[in-house]
Amino acid sequence: KELPPMQSFYQGWLFISAFNNPNILHAGAEGSKVSPSAAPERLPFCRVTEEDLAFFRKILPGRTIVDPDLVEPSNVDWLKSVRGSSEVLLRPQTTEEVSQILSYCNSRNLAVNPQGGNTGLVGGSVPVYDELILSTSLMNKILNFDSISGVLTCQAGCVLENLSFYLEERDYIMPLDLGAKGSCQIGGNVATNAGGLRLLRYGSLHGTVLGLELVLADGQVLDCLSTLRKDNTGYDLKQLFIGSEGTLGVITAVSILCPRKPKSVNVVFLGCETFEQLLKTFQLCKGMLGEILSAFEFLDSECMRLLNTHLKLPNPISDCPFYIVIETSGSDPTHDAQKLHNFLEEAMTSSLVSDGTVATEEAKIKALWSLRERVTEALTHDGFTHKYDISLPVERIYQLVTDMRKHLGNQAKSVVGYGHVGDGNLHLNVTSPSKDPALLAAIEPFVYEWTASCRGSISAEHGLGLKKRNYIYYSKQSQAVALMGNIKAMLDPKGILNPYKTLPDNLKQ
Amino acid sequence: KELPPMQSFYQGWLFISAFNNPNILHAGAEGSKVSPSAAPERLPFCRVTEEDLAFFRKILPGRTIVDPDLVEPSNVDWLKSVRGSSEVLLRPQTTEEVSQILSYCNSRNLAVNPQGGNTGLVGGSVPVYDELILSTSLMNKILNFDSISGVLTCQAGCVLENLSFYLEERDYIMPLDLGAKGSCQIGGNVATNAGGLRLLRYGSLHGTVLGLELVLADGQVLDCLSTLRKDNTGYDLKQLFIGSEGTLGVITAVSILCPRKPKSVNVVFLGCETFEQLLKTFQLCKGMLGEILSAFEFLDSECMRLLNTHLKLPNPISDCPFYIVIETSGSDPTHDAQKLHNFLEEAMTSSLVSDGTVATEEAKIKALWSLRERVTEALTHDGFTHKYDISLPVERIYQLVTDMRKHLGNQAKSVVGYGHVGDGNLHLNVTSPSKDPALLAAIEPFVYEWTASCRGSISAEHGLGLKKRNYIYYSKQSQAVALMGNIKAMLDPKGILNPYKTLPDNLKQ
Repeated sequence: KELPPMQSFYQGWLFISAFNNPNILHAGAEGSKVSPSAAPERLPFCRVTEEDLAFFRKILPGRTIVDPDLVEPSNVDWLKSVRGSSEVLLRPQTTEEVSQILSYCNSRNLAVNPQGGNTGLVGGSVPVYDELILSTSLMNKILNFDSISGVLTCQAGCVLENLSFYLEERDYIMPLDLGAKGSCQIGGNVATNAGGLRLLRYGSLHGTVLGLELVLADGQVLDCLSTLRKDNTGYDLKQLFIGSEGTLGVITAVSILCPRKPKSVNVVFLGCETFEQLLKTFQLCKGMLGEILSAFEFLDSECMRLLNTHLKLPNPISDCPFYIVIETSGSDPTHDAQKLHNFLEEAMTSSLVSDGTVATEEAKIKALWSLRERVTEALTHDGFTHKYDISLPVERIYQLVTDMRKHLGNQAKSVVGYGHVGDGNLHLNVTSPSKDPALLAAIEPFVYEWTASCRGSISAEHGLGLKKRNYIYYSKQSQAVALMGNIKAMLDPKGILNPYKTLPDNLKQ
Repeated sequence: KELPPMQSFYQGWLFISAFNNPNILHAGAEGSKVSPSAAPERLPFCRVTEEDLAFFRKILPGRTIVDPDLVEPSNVDWLKSVRGSSEVLLRPQTTEEVSQILSYCNSRNLAVNPQGGNTGLVGGSVPVYDELILSTSLMNKILNFDSISGVLTCQAGCVLENLSFYLEERDYIMPLDLGAKGSCQIGGNVATNAGGLRLLRYGSLHGTVLGLELVLADGQVLDCLSTLRKDNTGYDLKQLFIGSEGTLGVITAVSILCPRKPKSVNVVFLGCETFEQLLKTFQLCKGMLGEILSAFEFLDSECMRLLNTHLKLPNPISDCPFYIVIETSGSDPTHDAQKLHNFLEEAMTSSLVSDGTVATEEAKIKALWSLRERVTEALTHDGFTHKYDISLPVERIYQLVTDMRKHLGNQAKSVVGYGHVGDGNLHLNVTSPSKDPALLAAIEPFVYEWTASCRGSISAEHGLGLKKRNYIYYSKQSQAVALMGNIKAMLDPKGILNPYKTLPDNLKQ
């Protein structure tokens, strides 16, 4: 466990009054304190007995996994940054089975870690201790697709990319797309309120998810699986569960509004000399591409260096401090090409961009997109990575990268910035040759204080999970956090659902 | 009060176990029962005293209104269908004043009716008894507009049309538009989760509202007034209040994501012989107009007859059973005109539409839109109107009108259907020369049972308010309604906020 100094953390935007355990808080020699991202002590849940296993085997014959080798991949997150010690992996196929599992666990006071594709980046998807792992992987049936309205209804365990393939055959697409699409599941996407590459165009899941089926902590099935675009009969309960990271209920089915598949897609890769020019390009682009703009992403030259070095991906244009990926999606190839041409001409002649290349065929589109999508992968080869997922007013997003570089000096190996300009969402990543508590102490709380000073969000799309739970006060008022605690207590009074996650330790007792 | 027979109501989708007051339930001669839409008995809130008034006058000097003539317009809804008997109208200007009012009312057990533009259609915006009226009309300041991100932040009392004018000067528009725009306020829009004419294109307020500032029942200010597009730090609390009709908290400020003002707008008015052809036209339109389609609305020939008769609005095309209003909004006039031309050519040659007219100049656009927007007004001249706002799978929406006509025979004066095809939202209206309990008994619960049998929503965008509160079970599972009750009890334990609204009587005790 990491033990960086914590003093300055307490000088943050809002004071966290007490952590879970005073012994841990004051652990270590000479006043060094445990990181707020470290796991708190295990809560007094029961431990799984042979009797419990007999019950699970009865309702999930052949799908109650206890072989350590088979459970292991579900104990470790994708980044290999957190590891649980669960001994049981449950693989239900139906909502009724999930209901039976939770009803039993709640009465037995057994903690449960709901798990989708296990692609989360904040330690939210794996157990912290010995929580039972409830995997939705076998709940992968498409339940219905209405080709008139474009509403897809499916079980929570459907893999995002499989849904995309299914829809594309029917002339529709999913309203979200992200790098992890090959493994992540729609239930997990909704539970973390995943953003991704299409949010700029199709909006957030709070708008596109029309219905959810959920199992509450006590096993009760909450049917909010509406497929209607409009329904104002009472409070919109499903919204509470979107982004709740499995702490309020287990999502078992989703209905979602899907856009028509665009008839024409273009991708442009551009280079800019300054971030100011990049922002001006964004403004120009919004005006000239208008309704066909579907993504506006950026990466800096440090990202490009890592792509070149670690993944041998060549830069398709001349070297620049900043690179932009613009995607258009429209219904008329000629019109789209014309809009894009006019925009590029204007961007070039006004010297906003210094170089660029356009792709209209699928292979080249994929190649250009991979420069943006594979930055995460390149980072894993660069060393131990500290990941920050920050929302800021768009004109400030790169200043944080510059300030962080200055602040860290030679302490870091690489400090890189990339992300979703259109959404004001920066992915700031800092690498070091190996785990380095001194570096972490230099980054945090600096990054959070900087963000809070601009009223930004310390987690734009990744969620809080285990790692960021105690930083919530940097982005949320204490009354709001207290209300979240009341909602958790109302829906999961024993706290068995995904414990140690999302809410700060000082609320959880 | 209306006293139609209630027996068949109990044969509905889900059984409402008990109403508020058994004396009222069994009131009337020979077993006739009170309508579920009638007001329940007054709850034991305190009555306003001279001391209370002195307090209000101190914090709201000159803005504590007790003159009955001045309070009266706030006691009656726009439809003149419900009337309260409040004696006090409070007109705060700041969030702090709202906080002081609610803190005081909560401690004194005084009920409060939050009121925006008072344009609601379900009796949600006026007091039922003597609730204090808390009007947001003087909270009409624009707080900020960020022209880079398009995020507008304003007080809750800003009138929707004023916000539209403000934005249009800055090359942006509001993401919602509705007939009541000249009076309705953005806070009320959010509280009722208003849909309107642009939902098809820009999505619901659950997606476009980025932040809310709220005052809770006890006077606590909940600051969720983020202006970020993405923020996954904990549960998205503001979502709970969108569509809660002022029963969970008073919205004092809103931040909302606004789209760029389109450079080109076209409106087409078309006629179809059958509803099946209308649906085929919708499918064709979605495919060929794609990203520039911003509205697809319809009205039937009965609506046109009322427009002709009561408002002297002439039919701009030849008589047809069904009329469509299609709007396109785009960034390139030439491209938009071409797409529209191609679509119209295809629709005409394939005989989907039988006549039509196109408008590109603002005056004609307004004239065509008014045929759709002024149906509500025409209905008020036709007699006493029973209004239903139903969501259904789009291919079923007109069947309900046809079935209702057959079901009612000669009992009704007019049975008309219009609404938002793109959202599967039908406005079904039935008129009679005067209030007619027998007619009401013939319509309800028939209309609700029909809707529930298709898993539709008995209130797509109007909310439940007073009039529809007890019908919630036709669209929501009883467990879901119980959970709504728990949320209400958590946020407003004394039930002072907009009592008798949204939740059914059998939960409110």
